[in-house]
Amino acid sequence: MSAIEDLVNELSRLPTIGRKSAMRLTYHLLKQPPEQSKRLASALAVLTDRVRTCDRCNNLTEETVCSICTDPRRDQAVICAVEEAGDIAAIERTGEFRGVFHVLGGRLSPLDGVGPDDLTVGQLARRVEAGGVREIIIATNPKLEGEATALYVQEQLAAFDVRVTRIARGIPVGGDLEYADGVTIAQAITARSEMK
Amino acid sequence: MSAIEDLVNELSRLPTIGRKSAMRLTYHLLKQPPEQSKRLASALAVLTDRVRTCDRCNNLTEETVCSICTDPRRDQAVICAVEEAGDIAAIERTGEFRGVFHVLGGRLSPLDGVGPDDLTVGQLARRVEAGGVREIIIATNPKLEGEATALYVQEQLAAFDVRVTRIARGIPVGGDLEYADGVTIAQAITARSEMK
Repeated sequence: MSAIEDLVNELSRLPTIGRKSAMRLTYHLLKQPPEQSKRLASALAVLTDRVRTCDRCNNLTEETVCSICTDPRRDQAVICAVEEAGDIAAIERTGEFRGVFHVLGGRLSPLDGVGPDDLTVGQLARRVEAGGVREIIIATNPKLEGEATALYVQEQLAAFDVRVTRIARGIPVGGDLEYADGVTIAQAITARSEMK
Repeated sequence: MSAIEDLVNELSRLPTIGRKSAMRLTYHLLKQPPEQSKRLASALAVLTDRVRTCDRCNNLTEETVCSICTDPRRDQAVICAVEEAGDIAAIERTGEFRGVFHVLGGRLSPLDGVGPDDLTVGQLARRVEAGGVREIIIATNPKLEGEATALYVQEQLAAFDVRVTRIARGIPVGGDLEYADGVTIAQAITARSEMK
């Protein structure tokens, strides 16, 4: 197979990139100085070697524990639980949240074969059990499965002396946290409500 | 800079990929087996080493002369002149054209500093001069600059005993050849008209 087809095939595997877009990107790269393709290649090559998950919160990091968990200015007593590491970046962009995070690793979805044991809720419960945690803000996406996940997390934490809150549905229902704008996300965090 | 930021920056340089898309692609890759990133990395790394332009028509190829120019079943007497190598793929997808190609390397665009000397029209004239060419089909995009380029190519070939045609404007005016569907492109080639 040719080098062009090879790259078009690999690019087409990515979400939102179809065959025509992949060809367009490939031809674009061929018109740029070769250094651009080389830099992109090396960024991709080191990605999976260098990136791992934080031992404490499962955020993506290049250390044992991520920079948010080790930041002395962050409030370790407030943990925001999100579905995916990508959601952390969305919340961090707002600059409104000063606590730490916990990546659940997805959402409950029986149809996709994702059950309670596939999420890191047990690990979150152990963080609470270890003490020093005042509040858990559940920031799963406000969709059917995200809501089910939020309820499950709440149940699992019911035995502990910790406040469990849910971000406000300022985020359009059916939408994706990752795509929401900063103001909406900040609003949703501010208007968070008690789960009961 | 972190490995994630590094890749997000490199991906953001690509056309149609903004910062959020770049992050989404990066997180997607981190959820896949590492082999997928590695394969994409190596496809990118070899791209600019292996791909060059055809000595005869300027198509992208890994040989001295491209596979279309050396194909004995193609009619060397009919040359279709296109702006970019990517346009060849669009025409080839229709399966309607049995001649060969000539990549002009762009379109006349004084505002972008692209003048006649930046295009390979002289090389096309030499191909005609060498003999054996019956027709030149000018398939530049039916936009202002593509039409100006078509007229310029026609003028440069006026001295030779060769038929110069222009693809029909079956392609929506203001549109891009690369995005047109196969039927429209085939129609445009069939309904080509004499330039006079």
